[in-house]
Amino acid sequence: MGKKKKIKKLKARIKKLKSALKAATTHTHKVAPLAPPSFPDLPVIEGVRFAAAEAGVKYQGRLDVMLAVCDPGTSIAGVFTRSATRSANVLDCQDKIGSDATGGAAIIVNSGNSNAFTGRAGEGSVKAISEAVSKATGVPENRVYSASTGVIGVRLPHDRITAKLDELNAGLDPAALDLAARAIMTTDTFPKGAAAEVSIDGKPVKIAGIAKGSGMIAPDMATMLVYIFTDAEVEQHVLQGMLGNLTDMTFNNITVDSDTSTSDTLILAATGASGVKVTDKTDPFRDALHGVMLDLAHQVVRDGEGATKFVEVRVTGAASDKDARTHALAIANSPLIKTAIAGEDPNWGRVVMAIGKSGAQADRDQITIRFGDILVAEKGWVAESYREEDGAAYMKQDELVIDVDLGLGQGDATVWTCDLTHGYIQINADYRS
Amino acid sequence: MGKKKKIKKLKARIKKLKSALKAATTHTHKVAPLAPPSFPDLPVIEGVRFAAAEAGVKYQGRLDVMLAVCDPGTSIAGVFTRSATRSANVLDCQDKIGSDATGGAAIIVNSGNSNAFTGRAGEGSVKAISEAVSKATGVPENRVYSASTGVIGVRLPHDRITAKLDELNAGLDPAALDLAARAIMTTDTFPKGAAAEVSIDGKPVKIAGIAKGSGMIAPDMATMLVYIFTDAEVEQHVLQGMLGNLTDMTFNNITVDSDTSTSDTLILAATGASGVKVTDKTDPFRDALHGVMLDLAHQVVRDGEGATKFVEVRVTGAASDKDARTHALAIANSPLIKTAIAGEDPNWGRVVMAIGKSGAQADRDQITIRFGDILVAEKGWVAESYREEDGAAYMKQDELVIDVDLGLGQGDATVWTCDLTHGYIQINADYRS
Repeated sequence: MGKKKKIKKLKARIKKLKSALKAATTHTHKVAPLAPPSFPDLPVIEGVRFAAAEAGVKYQGRLDVMLAVCDPGTSIAGVFTRSATRSANVLDCQDKIGSDATGGAAIIVNSGNSNAFTGRAGEGSVKAISEAVSKATGVPENRVYSASTGVIGVRLPHDRITAKLDELNAGLDPAALDLAARAIMTTDTFPKGAAAEVSIDGKPVKIAGIAKGSGMIAPDMATMLVYIFTDAEVEQHVLQGMLGNLTDMTFNNITVDSDTSTSDTLILAATGASGVKVTDKTDPFRDALHGVMLDLAHQVVRDGEGATKFVEVRVTGAASDKDARTHALAIANSPLIKTAIAGEDPNWGRVVMAIGKSGAQADRDQITIRFGDILVAEKGWVAESYREEDGAAYMKQDELVIDVDLGLGQGDATVWTCDLTHGYIQINADYRS
Repeated sequence: MGKKKKIKKLKARIKKLKSALKAATTHTHKVAPLAPPSFPDLPVIEGVRFAAAEAGVKYQGRLDVMLAVCDPGTSIAGVFTRSATRSANVLDCQDKIGSDATGGAAIIVNSGNSNAFTGRAGEGSVKAISEAVSKATGVPENRVYSASTGVIGVRLPHDRITAKLDELNAGLDPAALDLAARAIMTTDTFPKGAAAEVSIDGKPVKIAGIAKGSGMIAPDMATMLVYIFTDAEVEQHVLQGMLGNLTDMTFNNITVDSDTSTSDTLILAATGASGVKVTDKTDPFRDALHGVMLDLAHQVVRDGEGATKFVEVRVTGAASDKDARTHALAIANSPLIKTAIAGEDPNWGRVVMAIGKSGAQADRDQITIRFGDILVAEKGWVAESYREEDGAAYMKQDELVIDVDLGLGQGDATVWTCDLTHGYIQINADYRS
């Protein structure tokens, strides 16, 4: 690259960083109280480059499109919403998972418009964007993975995105994942990133990921988008299997309000640039990936609409893992429990209620409930040692653990959620579209 | 009855009516905006008598115990919560349904304490109360149906109830169902009653019922209790079958916040005093009973915590009735839809989301959505004729219909719900136990 071209590129990057910085310091909404102190330093993942642009899809003066281009040979795995009304982008991505990796891969995401429930026009937009990305980047069209997030039921002005592709392609930079994290935000109150580095057979392997969700302003949906990149070398079917299993332990176990988006998308790209081969037996890699996914999943909950408490619900002793998860989700999604938590009320009776209604197996007299380390209820009644003051003091913390043992078997599950506050109502009811 | 005794009884009744009147006019909470203008005039049902008393179970200076005594031969049918952590009272009632009717039947209900999750002590309380009711009324113990509603996890001070049984028994009055409706209230903002009179083979048959739910103050649960009486003559198995079917079309299709109580109880008593035989073929009776049950079910929703909108969700064209109900409940329980309704936002995109997440069959391009008579979306997109101003104007009404046709088959279902407002959060989070 010539010096002149390089300077131009660096200047363009500076301009975008300034724009992102400006957006970051002129929040219309305050940053969520549970937000981490700062965005992490993400390592460069060899074999993938990023760019972000202001396309004005809906918002003006902010990054709203990201492009990632992965080198030839990159394995792509993906998991998607199971919604029966999923968006055109999701259906298209699902078709493209498992396609030939020779030509590399590209990921294109816009915020401001979800392209969901836009009829046949939605499919046309996906096609137009995929074609344009293919043309600009040289990546085959069947390796272009798109996602859209934002208002639903409004035709996506995809020309605004395709008009930016040459600029995006020219600006591709291995270090720009942080800008990508900002470009995919809708009403998130903070950008979400996580990374890990792990040594396998003495060689370093890196993982870095970004996510968005689940902040929202009517009439958008709390779409969750997650993109994770690694320089490990992993066969596609191994990567897909690993991603599916780890999703069940992370993103599928978080809930803000029990409502599922039509656009949820998680894509994991393994470039292979490290030259380190990873199989389904490579535990250190799997553990590191698990850590990155859990970190991102927790950040999504921490940015839950109106959230003031981060809550881990642990269920053990269930008849099966499935039963444990059913109980855990019944607790995590109960409006009565979520409002009690918001009110810092150690209302264990509502936990008993949620266990009872979940439909999974339970025996009143075998249930043990703890708030953190405090034994609250056992043997079908409040514990003799329990003092309401202790429970009330515990509930004042920002991070809470509700621990239920059913005393029936070996099944366990952990899910994460937040409380249900006036903030949630305000975000979703008070502001008209 | 001697004149002196009669005067004493009338005076006692006047005293209780005064107390009820006082309680009715000194609300700590305002009456729900969706409340009916007044409590209906309930007809006397021959063969059953009622009494209410101030036992001071938790509240002082208000009626908190009701007793109903049914004549020998009364058929009793019941449906109960399916919660796995259901209360001792519910388990006891379930055992007693179908027992020999020769000795009549008694129903005893207290408010202020739910006797749920109180371990073995809870069963002891049910036994003590049943014995005492049997002793006072002469009804066999296995025909005494009890229920408790209020705070959970606190031992029921059943002595306060048993101490009132002679007074209750002495005060039994065929016309006192209105007082019973007030005695079973917890944080309901209005007492709930409904009645019907129907002519069968030229002879009148009467039905009258009362209900409570689903107002609540922490840490109580939104328990629903319903008692319906008729002078029809119905065999127990016929009555039970009819009640089960009609419950699926009424009380099982209402939802305030998707949380299921540990104590929900519905008892239907047929005294037979009219001498009119009713079978499972007697459509006029069945329809009248359906009407009374639907009326009471709607009143429960109208008193939903914080409710400002009464919403009917109709789903047609589903692959099956079961699928239709799954979709309808997904819509009715979606916090995003309920908050949009609270905000008077015609947010049809969230309806699409709920249909998608429900798990039941749907095809985006076949879905038709109407708000009242306004066609909002069809063929996978917003309807061409739809104007946002029309939707917004419609949403300002107190009573709304969300109508979804899936275009797949003949399955249909209707459920009723209310919006999710700051009032709900206030009731359940802001007031500590």
